[in-house]
Formats: sequence, C-alpha cells, structure tokens
Amino acid sequence: MSAPATQAAPLYDRVALIGLGLIASSMFWAIKRAGLAGEVTGYARSQNTRDTARRIGLCDRVCDSAVEAVKEADLVVLCVPVGVMGAVAAEIAPALKPGATVSDVGSVKRAVIEAVGPELPAHVHFVPAHPLAGTEYSGPESGFATLFDNRWCLMITDETTDRPAADRLVEFWKGLGSKVDEMDADHHDLVLAVTSHTPHLIAYTMVGVADDLRRVSESEVIQYSATGFRDFTRIAASDPTMWRDVFLANKDATLEILGRFTEELFALQRAIRQGDGDHLHAYFTRTRAIRRGIIEAGQDTDAPDFGRGPAE
Amino acid sequence: MSAPATQAAPLYDRVALIGLGLIASSMFWAIKRAGLAGEVTGYARSQNTRDTARRIGLCDRVCDSAVEAVKEADLVVLCVPVGVMGAVAAEIAPALKPGATVSDVGSVKRAVIEAVGPELPAHVHFVPAHPLAGTEYSGPESGFATLFDNRWCLMITDETTDRPAADRLVEFWKGLGSKVDEMDADHHDLVLAVTSHTPHLIAYTMVGVADDLRRVSESEVIQYSATGFRDFTRIAASDPTMWRDVFLANKDATLEILGRFTEELFALQRAIRQGDGDHLHAYFTRTRAIRRGIIEAGQDTDAPDFGRGPAE
Repeated sequence: MSAPATQAAPLYDRVALIGLGLIASSMFWAIKRAGLAGEVTGYARSQNTRDTARRIGLCDRVCDSAVEAVKEADLVVLCVPVGVMGAVAAEIAPALKPGATVSDVGSVKRAVIEAVGPELPAHVHFVPAHPLAGTEYSGPESGFATLFDNRWCLMITDETTDRPAADRLVEFWKGLGSKVDEMDADHHDLVLAVTSHTPHLIAYTMVGVADDLRRVSESEVIQYSATGFRDFTRIAASDPTMWRDVFLANKDATLEILGRFTEELFALQRAIRQGDGDHLHAYFTRTRAIRRGIIEAGQDTDAPDFGRGPAE
Repeated sequence: MSAPATQAAPLYDRVALIGLGLIASSMFWAIKRAGLAGEVTGYARSQNTRDTARRIGLCDRVCDSAVEAVKEADLVVLCVPVGVMGAVAAEIAPALKPGATVSDVGSVKRAVIEAVGPELPAHVHFVPAHPLAGTEYSGPESGFATLFDNRWCLMITDETTDRPAADRLVEFWKGLGSKVDEMDADHHDLVLAVTSHTPHLIAYTMVGVADDLRRVSESEVIQYSATGFRDFTRIAASDPTMWRDVFLANKDATLEILGRFTEELFALQRAIRQGDGDHLHAYFTRTRAIRRGIIEAGQDTDAPDFGRGPAE
C-alpha cells in the first residue's frame, strides 16, 4: 500500500492523545504525515514521559494534565493501559467539548466499554477502536509513522453508534494508513483472544520455562535460540503492564481459548508418546495452509529470512 | 559478521550432499561462496528434486543414486529427515571412501547417532552436526548462501571423536558462515527441546486451535492475525515431515519440557482466573530480560518493525 495522500483539510481541528506510548506516538507521526489534524495535544501521567515528548517534538503541545489536553479537542483518543481507561475517562469527562468524539486503542473492548462508557457525558460520542499493530517496544520514543500502514483497525459499532462520528473516525484511521473493519465488542474480544492474547500468554510461558530450567544455562538458551524460540522471545518482550491488563480484562475469552489449546496440546503430546507419526504429520500439514492465507492477505512478508538480514 | 574470506585451498576435494532441501541447497551456495570444496555432488530420492537441482545449477554434479554421489567423497553430509538417516547410512556405507568424514544436519542427535553409527564402516569418521538455521520454506529452491551467517552450528563430540576430522569439519562450518560449538548428544537434545522443538509444537497447536474454532471465521483469523499469532503461523508452516521426525526422535526431552510448560501455563491460567495481576506482571517482566540477551548475543535484529517493512 502506498502512503496515504495528504488531506486537503484536517479531519479534526484538535486531536488529544492521552498516554504517550508506542501507539500514541506512532499516531502522532502518522497524523503529521497525512495532515489529519490542525493541532495535536498530548498528555502522559509520568513527568519523565512528558519531558521526553517535548524533547523529541512529540505532539504540537504537551500538557501537564489530561483535562488541559482534552479542552476544545474534537477527537480524544485514550492510549493508556486497559486497566486505567475508566479512571482516565472519569478525570477528563467534565472537560470534554460537547459533540467531541472519544475513542481508545485498547486491545480489549467489552471491558473498556463497560469502564469508560458510564463515565462519559451524554454530549460526546464514544467510538471504541483497536489498531492491530505493535512492536515489542514501548514508550514515547518507540513510535514511527508507518506502524499502521496496511494493518487493520477494528472499530466497535452497534445500533447506538453515532454514524457521522464513526464515519469520520474511519476516515481518520484510513488516513493513518489502516484498513478499517467494524464488529461488536464480544466478537472482537474472541477474535483477539485467538489471534493475539492466547499466543502472547503461550509465548510468555515458554520463555519463562526456558529461564527456569536448571539443566540448560541461560547463555545456552540465548545463544542457541533458533527459529521458534527466538520468535517467542520477541512476543514475550512486550509491555508487561499492557499485557497484564489485557488478560485480566479479556479473562473469559482467553480462558476459553486456553482450554481449547490445552486439549489440542494434550492430543499432540499423546501422539508423540505413542509414536503416532501420521497424526503429527496430518496436523502439521493442515497448519501450513493458514500461513499461506496470511501471506496472500498481505499481513506478512514471505521473505525467506523473515525479512531479517544476518545480525551484525 | 562479514562474509567469510575465500579459502586459499578447498578444505575437501569432494563433498557429497545427500538430500537436497533447504539446508543442503544453502550449504551448496555457501560452499561455492567460500570455495570450500573442489567438487560438490548431490543426490535426492525424488526425480523431481533432482531435475530441479540440475535446472538451477544446484551441485556441480547431481547423481541418480546416493551410492554414486558418495563415491570418492571426502565429506558426506546427510541432509535427509531424521527418520530416514539410518536407512540412508546403510545404503551408502559400502561405497564410502576410507578416511572419509560422514556428518549430518539433523535437529536431533541421540537418535541419529543410534541409527547411523552402527551402519557405518570402521574406516570412516562420523561427526554429527546441527546448524541452527532455517526458514519456513523447504525444497531445493529454498536455499541461499547467507543462511548460516553468524548462526551457531552445534557439533557432537566426545572421547571417541576423531579430532583431525572434527577440526576440519569445524573449519568447514566456519567457512559456511557459522559459529561452532561442541557438546554431547543428550545435552544437545535437551537444549533444542527448549529452544526449538517445544516452541514449534506449541505454535502448531495454537494455529490448529484457531483453524478449528467455529465462532471465528478463517478469514478473520487470517486478516486479523496480529503480532503474536502471525509469528506462530510462520513457525507452524515449517516442513511437516521434518517436524514429525523431530518429535518422534526427541520424544523424551520434548515430553519433559512440555510437562514443565503445561505446569507453568496452568499457574498463569489460575492467575488470570483469580485476577492476580501482580503474578502476571512479575512473570511478564522476567521474560523481557531474556529477549534483551538474545539481541545482545546478535541472534536477532531489534528493528522496531521486526525487520519487516509494511506488506505490499
């Protein structure tokens, strides 16, 4: 996908980004790339993060309170961990401009809607969203303008959604480089439990096991980290606070998928113990087809070295 | 690491590669890059693979039998699935040149040694090896000369090893771009169960679960494959025959690590169910450090987009 063309006029006069980590900082650089906002204000709870943001030019104006940042904003995006979304919404609610759109980028939607929705005044439009993009890095210096290019952003809409507000937010995310789809919150949470949350938990677990094993030294685990484990460690290096909140907030769907996972794993374990090569071969052949689909859908590269050159 | 310098003289007059998949084809291109052999012969069981090899210039001479390929070879490398190593060794044994070195590239070492060792005549030197390098692709056209650059090759040596033969093989693998370490077979199999075999089984399982789930469509799994699952699908696309043989041949170590994994996973599952955020956060923080070690050890890139540009 080529970079989106610069907009003729900004979609929003003022956008406020609350929380200045990987997603918000990438949003800022992508907003600037496409000229999507007249002004972007930003706020982070930590003084250190605000200082960094000012130093690197992240946001047109970094504010010392969330209330100040959202004043007169036409779009407010909550980019904080899922576990504190409700508290942040309560804090900014009295300062929100009538007619403003409030959105978020949380990885779980039902819990965010239940925490944020009741805090917001009736005169704003709440349209939750979730960009499916990330890296193993976090913090205000980790963002880059192309993070969302050709990635999906899932917007949560239903019969209560304000369509004009949602339509404008769709345009905004397309301007950031994303493809946009809409679904309800529960379906989103189940899809993400399968495609993201459970895989992360599994990767964290496997890396933890390797770290614990006394008969294999840590330096061996690190040096001989072949394909497989190396990918797991990248996943397992993601922000601990964000992921703690994800699992607590998407408990039911994660536990459901974990149950299915354990069942399948035990079946493969039994096949190994019994030497049932046919079962293993058939299973491994089936999973190959899914990979092809992902490459055809343009969600990954098929470079033979996974897009990585030899390490320096 | 820079590409190895061209050798003054070939290390071996003739190298025979038996089996012409990803590893053998990468070895051939890397041998040519560094001038490590006078002539490289090759053999694959499938006529189709031999035809492809001839068409793309893979090997100086493609032979129609393994016996023909190993004749007069100073180094014979078995690059076939672990499950057929013993049969191939029995087939070539009568044709091996006295004083030749026989090696292999299997992902499991104890089972290969038990299958191959008894088949070989006393007048050859058997030095098993395992290059820790691979991609999700297989077949004669999947190889490339840089596959082994800066990756480890583990050689299995003990008090019975012929040192001059092993030393020459070390030089050979260094010439292919690898770093070389030596260890015994059982330790190798445990290390690999942790860093490669169990992670692969887990990735296969997770991708299989996603494929089975009726409430999430296959197109959703494919489209919304975010970080995490996308990495799993790459792992789970590896060659089914190779991986079936790996799990059957490294049964004990894999089952041991799987047991540990399940234990840890159940502890995290309980923490999610009970809402124990502190347990989750502490666990996720610990696994981050291992990732840093891997990057510092030069076994992966820390590019913020994982080295992948946006998909076309």
